[in-house]
Amino acid sequence: MTDSAPSPVPERNETARVEAFSDGVLAIVVTLLVLELKVPRGLETEAAVRHALAEEWHSYLAFLTSFATVGIMWVNHHRLFTLIGRIDHWLLMLNLLLLLMICVVPFPTAIVSEYLGGGGAQIATLALGGVYLVTAIVFNILWRYAANGRRLIASHVSQSVVDAQTKQYRFGPVVYLVAFLAALVSPTLSVALNLAIAVFFALPLR
Amino acid sequence: MTDSAPSPVPERNETARVEAFSDGVLAIVVTLLVLELKVPRGLETEAAVRHALAEEWHSYLAFLTSFATVGIMWVNHHRLFTLIGRIDHWLLMLNLLLLLMICVVPFPTAIVSEYLGGGGAQIATLALGGVYLVTAIVFNILWRYAANGRRLIASHVSQSVVDAQTKQYRFGPVVYLVAFLAALVSPTLSVALNLAIAVFFALPLR
Amino acid sequence: MTDSAPSPVPERNETARVEAFSDGVLAIVVTLLVLELKVPRGLETEAAVRHALAEEWHSYLAFLTSFATVGIMWVNHHRLFTLIGRIDHWLLMLNLLLLLMICVVPFPTAIVSEYLGGGGAQIATLALGGVYLVTAIVFNILWRYAANGRRLIASHVSQSVVDAQTKQYRFGPVVYLVAFLAALVSPTLSVALNLAIAVFFALPLR
Amino acid sequence: MTDSAPSPVPERNETARVEAFSDGVLAIVVTLLVLELKVPRGLETEAAVRHALAEEWHSYLAFLTSFATVGIMWVNHHRLFTLIGRIDHWLLMLNLLLLLMICVVPFPTAIVSEYLGGGGAQIATLALGGVYLVTAIVFNILWRYAANGRRLIASHVSQSVVDAQTKQYRFGPVVYLVAFLAALVSPTLSVALNLAIAVFFALPLR
Repeated sequence: MTDSAPSPVPERNETARVEAFSDGVLAIVVTLLVLELKVPRGLETEAAVRHALAEEWHSYLAFLTSFATVGIMWVNHHRLFTLIGRIDHWLLMLNLLLLLMICVVPFPTAIVSEYLGGGGAQIATLALGGVYLVTAIVFNILWRYAANGRRLIASHVSQSVVDAQTKQYRFGPVVYLVAFLAALVSPTLSVALNLAIAVFFALPLR
Repeated sequence: MTDSAPSPVPERNETARVEAFSDGVLAIVVTLLVLELKVPRGLETEAAVRHALAEEWHSYLAFLTSFATVGIMWVNHHRLFTLIGRIDHWLLMLNLLLLLMICVVPFPTAIVSEYLGGGGAQIATLALGGVYLVTAIVFNILWRYAANGRRLIASHVSQSVVDAQTKQYRFGPVVYLVAFLAALVSPTLSVALNLAIAVFFALPLR
Repeated sequence: MTDSAPSPVPERNETARVEAFSDGVLAIVVTLLVLELKVPRGLETEAAVRHALAEEWHSYLAFLTSFATVGIMWVNHHRLFTLIGRIDHWLLMLNLLLLLMICVVPFPTAIVSEYLGGGGAQIATLALGGVYLVTAIVFNILWRYAANGRRLIASHVSQSVVDAQTKQYRFGPVVYLVAFLAALVSPTLSVALNLAIAVFFALPLR
Repeated sequence: MTDSAPSPVPERNETARVEAFSDGVLAIVVTLLVLELKVPRGLETEAAVRHALAEEWHSYLAFLTSFATVGIMWVNHHRLFTLIGRIDHWLLMLNLLLLLMICVVPFPTAIVSEYLGGGGAQIATLALGGVYLVTAIVFNILWRYAANGRRLIASHVSQSVVDAQTKQYRFGPVVYLVAFLAALVSPTLSVALNLAIAVFFALPLR
């Protein structure tokens, strides 16, 4: 392949399909989360259905937390790819690794749905917080790979924007680590902290 | 970040990925609805299968109502983003909130599938109508945020088009509120009203 | 709205999001079909698993038939939208109706999976063939609406191409009707005919 | 149709929708895989949940292997369509066949989840490896069809790039055949080999 000039491809096209595939995965993950909200079956009265639905508060909390977390991840991914202008083999691989982590999210979410508020709540929330934490770390690795020496940064993006993004990204793994470790003290606190992180990132203060 | 000029991005690109992600979520939601249509298992005769399928009319009604409602929401979303030309942080967040509500739709739809025509029908239809109502309200908030002072309106859209859209949007929450409250009188009527709303919005009379 | 000139939008943009949404729905439908292939649970020996998997031939046939049919529908949809250059309200609604029918496909496919080769096979295959038939009819209505007087045909498409498409489309509902009615004679024949129709449409002879 | 000149369509548009549909299917397949990770239900203690989750190692291995394999297939598909600049009827059909194989992946993955490490492991891993093998073969057929005499190759792609791709593609079916046959010796080895293949293809050495 070395004897032929590389085929020139316009910058936009290069990242477009990576974004489309990632959008697809993220959209499906947030939507699949609803399948973990279980309809109580075979009840006979209004009061019984009402009671059964109210009992499911841990499912609703788990759903909301994972929806908000993956939603914020989508916003993050979207922002990254307004700064990233080119792709290469390793970026594709890191993006796949990121998508792998995000695809896993419904599994610990379902474990939390089943066990929060009972025996098994700790391992459940450690699993959920652990997946969020690793995802935040992979996000950092991906960004640093792209930003290092402006390897894959679009030419129109100024260096100060890149540096600000790098600085801000240091923050993510730390807060997810705190929420993860909180599960050792109180599983419900851990989920609440994870939800709070998502809400915090949704505020434009940073 | 204040010392660098913002990176100029063409208008179209800004909303394209938001639309793609939203399209993905909406497409998955309407498709997941079919998973709530339960195949009767282990029957032995034509008559038994036929009978079991006919018994599921509440599932079909719930499916049809939610498909039509989410379908109309897609048309609405599509129209909004022909008028919205820019995005900002809060629009992203409001859009995520809108997608959250739409992602929830299959859950009350499944509850209605299970309980319409029996004990539990009222709480089931209140849940479904409630989700539709909140979604309609979030749609209004999102539009008003974008339209207020033409904050995010595309430059080629005339103000009279914006005003007409705002006027028309006032209508949505009111009719969904009526359908929601109808569940207190008759759950089946409430679902029928919600279906009628979708059909009405499908007509180009408005 | 009459006092303002309509906002000019480039032709391509108009159909792009309809195609994206439709692609999403069709992609999800073909993929959800696999969820109806049931893993035999709790068996102990190679022979038992092998036997149980072989027993599921009706599931494989139903899966293959619906995958092929929806796949061909995607090709059809794709072709239509190379000819259609504009959208209007009714086209959006007809497209939603088409997507509704396609979204329903996994349900009768699952019924055929459960009942083909036993009691209930006839109602199952009537349901599947009926959904295909109605879908083919909606495809025709949508095309005729778009093509009538070149209402929504892209300007670069010649009239002879439009006429050829119209002529070819007459064919679809007829063959699906034959496969549908065949279920009254033999359910397995009906599924086989539906699969044959998809394979036939996959050949470029027409 | 012969009396009218074919409607000229820009090169990019031709493959865009095929890529979008394929991206959708691939994104959904990798995401659906998580549904096979089963939450242990109704346990009472941390230790019981921890133990039950640890017992599921074959599910995690199957999930990881299929995610990695389909992920690499996406990268492959993405690369092919940077070289392919036009589509025709048979390419559409071959692409549908490829998507059919990829859509099937969750089924043998679930069988491996259920039976790896017990009776039924061999047929399970033969099914999984067999689906991967056939998919690799279909990839080759699709590429050779497009590349033969530069039938559908984009004009800006040099012949040496095409030849290098062809040479590299010969490799795929061979390694998948080895992993498939390994199931006859050891089912776990077969899955491990398939995972190793995906990791190997993820390295940029080739």
